[in-house]
Amino acid sequence: MLTRYIKLKTKGNSDIIDITPDLKKITEEEKLKDGIIFLSVIGSTAALTTMEYESGLIKDLKDTCESLMPYKADYAHNFTWSDDNGHAHLRSSLIKTHLFVSVTSGKLDLGTWQQIVLIDFDTRPRDRKIVIKAIN
Amino acid sequence: MLTRYIKLKTKGNSDIIDITPDLKKITEEEKLKDGIIFLSVIGSTAALTTMEYESGLIKDLKDTCESLMPYKADYAHNFTWSDDNGHAHLRSSLIKTHLFVSVTSGKLDLGTWQQIVLIDFDTRPRDRKIVIKAIN
Amino acid sequence: MLTRYIKLKTKGNSDIIDITPDLKKITEEEKLKDGIIFLSVIGSTAALTTMEYESGLIKDLKDTCESLMPYKADYAHNFTWSDDNGHAHLRSSLIKTHLFVSVTSGKLDLGTWQQIVLIDFDTRPRDRKIVIKAIN
Repeated sequence: MLTRYIKLKTKGNSDIIDITPDLKKITEEEKLKDGIIFLSVIGSTAALTTMEYESGLIKDLKDTCESLMPYKADYAHNFTWSDDNGHAHLRSSLIKTHLFVSVTSGKLDLGTWQQIVLIDFDTRPRDRKIVIKAIN
Repeated sequence: MLTRYIKLKTKGNSDIIDITPDLKKITEEEKLKDGIIFLSVIGSTAALTTMEYESGLIKDLKDTCESLMPYKADYAHNFTWSDDNGHAHLRSSLIKTHLFVSVTSGKLDLGTWQQIVLIDFDTRPRDRKIVIKAIN
Repeated sequence: MLTRYIKLKTKGNSDIIDITPDLKKITEEEKLKDGIIFLSVIGSTAALTTMEYESGLIKDLKDTCESLMPYKADYAHNFTWSDDNGHAHLRSSLIKTHLFVSVTSGKLDLGTWQQIVLIDFDTRPRDRKIVIKAIN
């Protein structure tokens, strides 16, 4: 079982980062031909998903998350812990922290306008670690 | 690593299609006994999930998606690209494009009233390709 | 392919149960070192995700689900089947019933404040079965 890590610094506050280039690099370096890559971001205030990574949708996705789980709301988490990231936890639980992508003939099975992104919902810059496992 | 494809035509507009029969067929044809099937729909305006596939819930799921991420809203994606499928992208990113289902003794590990569905949120009929990988 | 089951009784009504201890036990018993554990809860009214399992967020997650997909709404499912769990089906389809977690050096790849939970959205106590598959 191959294990790799993607480590990156985020700005927090729903920072959305395209990690497709990192995954392509790992696919090439590890000579993955036909297999599956499993990704998990460690923590409970971030998420992994796919999207067309363009400025319009980056804004729309942030706005949608804010609309569905607003930053300013009476979260018990914030009250209990004198914290301000209750919304970040909720968004992470709904979108979830893990994702897989299959590989066929050495290429990630994604559409032309489909990228894999990390979203950091926390309210401060964070060092994030994504654990990668792969089977070939 | 076994690779198969499910190709199908959708009507778009939150068309929900039960693909459980296709998966049962693949399970039988490939003689999967105890393993896992990984599914990914290619693109950024569709999603895969499970549901009880009955007309009431089909309507309810469409209504819920429309309520949470409406077709008519001021999406930057639509404005930037003179497009009308911003909502479809957002729904795909939240529900996500991939799914796995395990197989035990040759049967999909699903409940009696639980089916695997493709939802096409795009605003026009589409030819969709689902990549299937399986380990046994 | 290793197969195990977690069977548990829930109270229904968005009961959120931390199953991380069960997964740690399986990891130890099966001597998983570097691999992936795949979980699927059978049925269409429950879900699996990760969260910081503390009383504040447990309340917040229930409130958020209620806000996004309320118990009391005119669901076609409820009308058609004289049922009252339409919201439970919808929440299950959006959060989804399956999850994987990777294992590195014999430990689950989770953050310190990140647990794996089963949420039972159904409106009555249920016996739930989670199918576990693992590759090592």
